[in-house]
Amino acid sequence: METKGLIMVHTGDGKGKTTAALGLALRAWGSGLRVMILQFIKGGWKYGELEAIAKLGEINGRIEIRPMGLGLMSKSEAEKQQHIEAAHKAMLEAEKIITSGEYDLVILDEINYAVKFGLIEIDDVLDLLDKKPAQEHILLTGRDAHPQLIDRADLVTEMKLIKHPFQKGIKAQRGIEF
Amino acid sequence: METKGLIMVHTGDGKGKTTAALGLALRAWGSGLRVMILQFIKGGWKYGELEAIAKLGEINGRIEIRPMGLGLMSKSEAEKQQHIEAAHKAMLEAEKIITSGEYDLVILDEINYAVKFGLIEIDDVLDLLDKKPAQEHILLTGRDAHPQLIDRADLVTEMKLIKHPFQKGIKAQRGIEF
Repeated sequence: METKGLIMVHTGDGKGKTTAALGLALRAWGSGLRVMILQFIKGGWKYGELEAIAKLGEINGRIEIRPMGLGLMSKSEAEKQQHIEAAHKAMLEAEKIITSGEYDLVILDEINYAVKFGLIEIDDVLDLLDKKPAQEHILLTGRDAHPQLIDRADLVTEMKLIKHPFQKGIKAQRGIEF
Repeated sequence: METKGLIMVHTGDGKGKTTAALGLALRAWGSGLRVMILQFIKGGWKYGELEAIAKLGEINGRIEIRPMGLGLMSKSEAEKQQHIEAAHKAMLEAEKIITSGEYDLVILDEINYAVKFGLIEIDDVLDLLDKKPAQEHILLTGRDAHPQLIDRADLVTEMKLIKHPFQKGIKAQRGIEF
């Protein structure tokens, strides 16, 4: 048995992907690791989690979240070009962060979305993973993870929605769902 | 559409159940909610998360974790009796906490385990849920959630293990898996 930095994936259609990423960030921080969260979809993390991360960061600066990329895409082609540019900038930032060796856990939140919608290529994501320091952990989130990413990963969890309160006519609630 | 306290379930065989519970606790805390985590299996939460929860609690006391119950069970009948007693004490404590109205989110971590192994009855769990204040959220975790609990819940997410580093001969690592 060896230890090494893990490549982890949270995928599936359930609510738990970002929630579990947040939990992993907290656990890692609690264990003394240095954590960076890069958001590939702006707006994916809401008030509660941004506030909580900010408060943890105030304690000792070992955790940070950086919003990058744009929001969810519409179908306009002109808009797609802007999303592509934003996603490429996000990839450059991710490379800088990952290769810096300054973090023990880097979370690439919703990067699977960027691949799925053709904003970035899966090969570029795999190349990025090749560049990570051996002991650094990386978590990639988002539904419909690419099969080549699943193949490359060490730990893959699928969060599957079995039942949702929207289906019962209950509104999303602050502190729980956002 | 109405707002009301949700009954949530994290189940499945994947790693994400407790991690996502931790994430939900952090999000709720970040949004100003008061959070209590009751552990039905001692030892289920490891150093990183206990430390992180303790540090959050130091900031403003709005979050706490209480270990209750015993560890995982062996097959000895004598031991089972001790587990049953511990689980019943945990249920009494859970009732006190839930009906106190002092918390916005109560997490009953690994309570599904206690039901699965016959330490407590599903009917007692459902009765407990009937007693909760209307706006209080409750999250119940653990694999093999009882069908009657799934039926009763508003939000159910299954965390499904697709791939695990043990399968590749990689050791569990502090800050990530515990």
